[in-house]
Amino acid sequence: MAAATHWARFTARDGRVGFGVLEANRLLEHAGDLFTGSRPTGSVLEPGSFTLLEPCLPSKIVALWNNFGALAAKLGKPAPTHPLFLLKPGTCVLGPGAAIRRPASYAGKIAFEGELGIVIGARCSAVPRELAMRHVFGYTCVNDVTAAEVLNETPDFAQWCRAKGYDTFGCMGPTIATQLDWPNSRVVTLVDGVERQNYPLSDMILGVAEVVSRVSQDMTLLPGDLIACGTSLGVGSMRDGATVEVRIEGIGTLRNTLG
Amino acid sequence: MAAATHWARFTARDGRVGFGVLEANRLLEHAGDLFTGSRPTGSVLEPGSFTLLEPCLPSKIVALWNNFGALAAKLGKPAPTHPLFLLKPGTCVLGPGAAIRRPASYAGKIAFEGELGIVIGARCSAVPRELAMRHVFGYTCVNDVTAAEVLNETPDFAQWCRAKGYDTFGCMGPTIATQLDWPNSRVVTLVDGVERQNYPLSDMILGVAEVVSRVSQDMTLLPGDLIACGTSLGVGSMRDGATVEVRIEGIGTLRNTLG
Repeated sequence: MAAATHWARFTARDGRVGFGVLEANRLLEHAGDLFTGSRPTGSVLEPGSFTLLEPCLPSKIVALWNNFGALAAKLGKPAPTHPLFLLKPGTCVLGPGAAIRRPASYAGKIAFEGELGIVIGARCSAVPRELAMRHVFGYTCVNDVTAAEVLNETPDFAQWCRAKGYDTFGCMGPTIATQLDWPNSRVVTLVDGVERQNYPLSDMILGVAEVVSRVSQDMTLLPGDLIACGTSLGVGSMRDGATVEVRIEGIGTLRNTLG
Repeated sequence: MAAATHWARFTARDGRVGFGVLEANRLLEHAGDLFTGSRPTGSVLEPGSFTLLEPCLPSKIVALWNNFGALAAKLGKPAPTHPLFLLKPGTCVLGPGAAIRRPASYAGKIAFEGELGIVIGARCSAVPRELAMRHVFGYTCVNDVTAAEVLNETPDFAQWCRAKGYDTFGCMGPTIATQLDWPNSRVVTLVDGVERQNYPLSDMILGVAEVVSRVSQDMTLLPGDLIACGTSLGVGSMRDGATVEVRIEGIGTLRNTLG
């Protein structure tokens, strides 16, 4: 497997927003478009001179439910043959280091879910599985945040989109890695430094190519769209002030604090 | 109430895409941005020289469930105190006259739902009810299309976003009317000329200002975002080749054919 490039968006000290390649904590600024083509500007930002933003701006987040064998077994759910998903709006996206905000109207439990995120690189619709990887730009870490008590507030209608769609509830980053040996990678989630999740991506029921192919049968995917692959064992809630880290070796650590 | 302006997007004979005001079937072309400010170019397109498109490009569609008294009573559902909704992606939007496409993988029932659509005019978040109308740009007709058998394909997870998110399943138009006396308006839906729905908007459980205010507490709304207010009695399925019309006096007739 070729070495991964790590793409990031940033705000520089002068307030400008840009993007580029993160290499040994230095940011090699690029011009153009992340997905359709870019080139280095020659400008290099030293560590401390920039702040990372969400690495792209998805038009939508497709968030999978029940896509890991261990969690499905624990909950007694049959393995899906097609991705089960909800949508989170683009407005919920949050970058690395930024604060998750508790909704003003909500005093209940807020849950974290460490996940692998797939970033789409090119507009696609009904892509056959064998061609799906051509449309994957790369991989990122996701914390799929949920207002847990909103979800089942009404018995007749599971409020997935509302519970998971609040602004700042779609944490992603710190970078997009263009390559990942995902079947040999793990998702590790820590809350205030204590490990709460540590699961192998090899336990995914529907793998990366299968997920992209099948979701693209359901809707057109656009460059920058994010598919959150679902979570596994160890999901829990975060107190106000808690810091959640989602780590995937080969991508990096996504760190966000609640409130 | 001031007379409504009817905004539309169009493709002209030369292939250019534009927008403007529809008046007596003539299109008064405008330049600028529909939501932040525009002015007439002086160009007037005569009937037959342009094709209407979806009147705006929502970043997301917030589709309400169970928001009409008569349907709630029929189904035995309690009236919601906060909007119950799912999200449809921007990629599902379809304009007037365009064809609804059956998903390649799906042979089951496809349902129509005639609805009032609210088009947001300005970015907003947590807007108080008394200020909500400032953020409403106007109103449109919606056909909230559903692949009915996808919805309950799996017992554990209602697939709202998938069943309603297919490309072409978010029909809207023909125009956005900037004014509507909605409490005195009705939604009429015809399938192949036969009336299937005819319900008063006064039966909405949560009205326009309340819906905009409350949904904006759940997520930031952007200019062009569409809130579909939910449907009432008379929902049914459409055969391949059927034409569905959703009519709201003061807006117009949204007409789409399946397949």
